[in-house]
Amino acid sequence: MTLLYKADPERGKQWARLFAQKAPEIPFRLWPDIGDPASVRYLAAWQPPEYSVRTLPNLEVIFSVGAGIDQFDLSGVPPHIAVVRMIEPGIVEGMVEYVTQAVLTIHRDLFDYALQQRQRAWREMPVRAASSRRVGVLGLGMLGSAVLERLRLFGFPCAGWSRSAHQLEGIECYAGVESLDAFLARTDVLICLLPLTGATRGLLDKRLFGKLPMGASFINAGRGPQVNQQDMLDALDRGRLQNAILDVTDPEPLPESHPFWTHPRVRITPHIASATRPETAVDVVLDNIRRHRDGLPMIGEIDRSRGY
Amino acid sequence: MTLLYKADPERGKQWARLFAQKAPEIPFRLWPDIGDPASVRYLAAWQPPEYSVRTLPNLEVIFSVGAGIDQFDLSGVPPHIAVVRMIEPGIVEGMVEYVTQAVLTIHRDLFDYALQQRQRAWREMPVRAASSRRVGVLGLGMLGSAVLERLRLFGFPCAGWSRSAHQLEGIECYAGVESLDAFLARTDVLICLLPLTGATRGLLDKRLFGKLPMGASFINAGRGPQVNQQDMLDALDRGRLQNAILDVTDPEPLPESHPFWTHPRVRITPHIASATRPETAVDVVLDNIRRHRDGLPMIGEIDRSRGY
Repeated sequence: MTLLYKADPERGKQWARLFAQKAPEIPFRLWPDIGDPASVRYLAAWQPPEYSVRTLPNLEVIFSVGAGIDQFDLSGVPPHIAVVRMIEPGIVEGMVEYVTQAVLTIHRDLFDYALQQRQRAWREMPVRAASSRRVGVLGLGMLGSAVLERLRLFGFPCAGWSRSAHQLEGIECYAGVESLDAFLARTDVLICLLPLTGATRGLLDKRLFGKLPMGASFINAGRGPQVNQQDMLDALDRGRLQNAILDVTDPEPLPESHPFWTHPRVRITPHIASATRPETAVDVVLDNIRRHRDGLPMIGEIDRSRGY
Repeated sequence: MTLLYKADPERGKQWARLFAQKAPEIPFRLWPDIGDPASVRYLAAWQPPEYSVRTLPNLEVIFSVGAGIDQFDLSGVPPHIAVVRMIEPGIVEGMVEYVTQAVLTIHRDLFDYALQQRQRAWREMPVRAASSRRVGVLGLGMLGSAVLERLRLFGFPCAGWSRSAHQLEGIECYAGVESLDAFLARTDVLICLLPLTGATRGLLDKRLFGKLPMGASFINAGRGPQVNQQDMLDALDRGRLQNAILDVTDPEPLPESHPFWTHPRVRITPHIASATRPETAVDVVLDNIRRHRDGLPMIGEIDRSRGY
């Protein structure tokens, strides 16, 4: 009934300590010290080894240590093995912080004030009321909902778009491809928190940016390959987009020669918006192991047909 | 019963329009077109003309159009004239936005990530949980309370310090000079929202910065003269302070040659954290005029002996 951990080794030590405290009855192994392969039932991994299925004959569940599972090649994973993405409060807290900071940076013109500081210019710009700055989130999962709930408190008119219908208090919810253009037309600050799937790869392209109001801004804390990067640069250069704040790129790390690094209207952070925190993640994994043993559905268990 | 407006003329036009809509019975005059001086009972001003008291014989109330009244020289204002500072929802909203953005900028290491972007470096830094980042606000008036209430939602341990005792849900409140050092010792991000008075001028000096934990950060959205600027630079250079985000300086505008402009650990904005918004400010002034006529205390009426 061993859990095998194969991800960042520093965090792995924290996982080991937390497992020893909270669930001493579950043997914990840190890759590559796997012990008896036949005893491994659970694998917690960022990228599971390809051979995991072959070498771990009794594997029952793969837990992603990240919010997404797009880094997994599921084609080699037999259907009897459950795949679970990480839904835990630490990830949510980090994402709410990051996106709130990004929206307020745009809302309060801090790109422009940073430029003025370099020019030593003391020049006030008119302040827009939050009630006239319409925020919209692509993706209404746990992260999107939490982000919108926080932004709403600042008085921004808030909307969200998702493939399926949602109801959230105080949030205008749009559902399905046919409502995407209406959602974009009312969105001054667009935030992408979608999972990476076949349907979202390349979604943020010339056509989509063209549906936003002139001078809108874009925040990507989803996945880099969802954006057509050349289309985004064109939209910035034509004024369709005013600013872009990107926590994810394609590829990662972003190559030194990439034009995003030096674009005055692009802010880059190295995929740090949100990360699994061992303290809270271990609780979620232990809860899911209990659910699995009891035959209950696990929180974050993915539907292979949708890819998330 | 005329109200005379003497401040930014562009905003003055908005005030005129709003007065015409909401209180057509109150004659509204835009400086310098004052009409009959004897009919002016109310003056709304950023800096009242010195001669206002001499030339406006029936003046009853001076309304500041800003949150503070430190720009007024009250020595020439006879005691029968009430002085009222601006307490209105637009000012509060702007300040909550500004300070939240500043705290999250510090909390999520965005000073460092901006530097890394200039170096084209994709390098992740460890994320600290909000629960381990202690925020403290100097000043527990309407602005300080509103800022703390919002920051608390992010999970930051929150405290406030004020001259007099306060009780705020979920906020550790410190009162009086004798508790200042204890407040500073537990504060990783210090935010100044104090009014400028004889007691707060130069308060943020070497002694005070020395009571903060090493590597604390400082946000000033109070008034520039509250800070000993050389002491602040020394604290930054010795690592006592890690970052400073300043919306106010001394003097304003900050001279081109000032070292703050180019310091890598200082962010400057030109006193834009919060401004009176005519839409909401006019309602507050009209309400106060009604209160004054009815012999009730006005919201924001200042106590000359305290200076705020």
